[in-house]
Amino acid sequence: MTDQPIVLRGMGSFHVGGRVVEISGKPTETAVLSPGGIPAQFDPNGAYQVEQMYVQYFLPERRKGKFPLLLWHGGGLTGVTYETTPDGREGWLNIFLRKGFDVYVSDAVERGRSGFAPPEVWDGKAQFVTKANPFWRHRIGESWDADRAKMKRLPGNQFPVDAYDNFTRQMVPRWTSTDEAIIAAYTALVEKIGPCMVLCHSQGCGFAFRVAQARPQLFKALIAIEPAVAGDVALAGELKDVPMLVLYGDFIAQHPRWSQMHENAAPYFAAVRAAGGNVDVVNLPDVGIRGNSHMMMMDKNNEEVADLIEKWLIDKDLTD
Amino acid sequence: MTDQPIVLRGMGSFHVGGRVVEISGKPTETAVLSPGGIPAQFDPNGAYQVEQMYVQYFLPERRKGKFPLLLWHGGGLTGVTYETTPDGREGWLNIFLRKGFDVYVSDAVERGRSGFAPPEVWDGKAQFVTKANPFWRHRIGESWDADRAKMKRLPGNQFPVDAYDNFTRQMVPRWTSTDEAIIAAYTALVEKIGPCMVLCHSQGCGFAFRVAQARPQLFKALIAIEPAVAGDVALAGELKDVPMLVLYGDFIAQHPRWSQMHENAAPYFAAVRAAGGNVDVVNLPDVGIRGNSHMMMMDKNNEEVADLIEKWLIDKDLTD
Repeated sequence: MTDQPIVLRGMGSFHVGGRVVEISGKPTETAVLSPGGIPAQFDPNGAYQVEQMYVQYFLPERRKGKFPLLLWHGGGLTGVTYETTPDGREGWLNIFLRKGFDVYVSDAVERGRSGFAPPEVWDGKAQFVTKANPFWRHRIGESWDADRAKMKRLPGNQFPVDAYDNFTRQMVPRWTSTDEAIIAAYTALVEKIGPCMVLCHSQGCGFAFRVAQARPQLFKALIAIEPAVAGDVALAGELKDVPMLVLYGDFIAQHPRWSQMHENAAPYFAAVRAAGGNVDVVNLPDVGIRGNSHMMMMDKNNEEVADLIEKWLIDKDLTD
Repeated sequence: MTDQPIVLRGMGSFHVGGRVVEISGKPTETAVLSPGGIPAQFDPNGAYQVEQMYVQYFLPERRKGKFPLLLWHGGGLTGVTYETTPDGREGWLNIFLRKGFDVYVSDAVERGRSGFAPPEVWDGKAQFVTKANPFWRHRIGESWDADRAKMKRLPGNQFPVDAYDNFTRQMVPRWTSTDEAIIAAYTALVEKIGPCMVLCHSQGCGFAFRVAQARPQLFKALIAIEPAVAGDVALAGELKDVPMLVLYGDFIAQHPRWSQMHENAAPYFAAVRAAGGNVDVVNLPDVGIRGNSHMMMMDKNNEEVADLIEKWLIDKDLTD
């Protein structure tokens, strides 16, 4: 399908949400901001714009989705998650666009094009991770090594491991003190867009469940890709009218971290069902789709997984 | 023209350049990375990927430009500069795409989706600017006020001043110690793309001249939008075969900072001409285009300015 043109009725970007904070009582600074440039005086006191969120959208000429599809990334990453895969194939942005969905890709507050706030505004510091860290944590393999021949791989893994260096290029620092600001911006986004379908990944699902619990009428579907954390069992009834699809990849049972996260989330989905909700939890190996990592939107079979999601959306009558 | 579909033969993104640095001798940390998530152990020692650059590209079905057009943003900003304008019109990304150019939009190292490096790797700290700061510095008006009625405007200014808050939402922090890393990544980009046309803005032009001086054979055109700094007079001959267009907006003479920057750049352009080069410096008011701010790609007449650039590219035989 990638040899066909992508025909758009529109594309663009905007920032939503955020707030203005005042900083006062600090001395004036001088800095040269461009190489060889003229020194500029900076009075650091004044009003700062902080905690807004960047959103880029693509609207296909032939629309099939009944509602816009919002793609929310996971921790330590940006909306780039859904663009071209590390080995250069089309990501879920292009794939769902070609399937006829209006797609909105955002960078959570403090990530990527959303920018981040001065230290006077946020507690804590940016957290960085090594190249090795996500390799095990995202079930890309057992252990990373700069020498590819020495990497311990997972047999049958669908992640394009040979392009792992490109994956690490899209990692960005994260704060651990900004959850409320992130949730406020995602809330502003769904309020701006109106009724929509949210596809979230990993950490992003924690935010999606929080926003959905507070604004369930705006969620026409919630597709959770390996949620790092699920919703609040005490609020399970809030999402009883939101069709929910939860996908898990392969190698979960033998992974100490992921087996626990999988187990921890189950009671929430049971509680939503008990409240009359509709939750489809799909462990991909159970339906014959094997080898998926935590980054299934980048895996070699990312089209196959997208097809499964599309079929679910059709079954739920969310397409025309 | 914006009621016509945008037809793409491809779109995607990648990161270029960067390097791997080793950090050692630090204690292990524990952090909860997702709200309600399981604490994760972080060994901060190890290999880090740093100083890569994010690039997003859009390739129109009907190509007219002989070479790809690279849009390089200015200081404190990202590639968002060229996307939708603060008041919701199409920016130069869409406009040049509709004109038939392959367009590549990047976020300089340390900005936006390029991420930034740990404090162990970079000296100095991120620099933040107030909402008021660019209002005067970018000749959007004389002085900012949270109360729009109290803003001092420039009569006839083309910037969509009533959407200034949206402009400040796209501002991101900057470092002042990362020039060499930024230049290395831009160099990697032009080497990857091959012969291309670079349109730079403000601080980005300082980088563009540096890269062009080192790789002149890869530059088929250099379009400098209000360069904050020009090239090196001693190297003026390097760019004698690179057609150059330099644009300045309005209100330059009465602006102490911009009148000086305009004056400082002139000897370089004279030196390139003296070396046999081809430099067209256009002060827009001299050709009847009035009211442009430093952010002319967002100004209300941004299509008119893009038309002038397109006409120049046609005149230089850079289109089919």
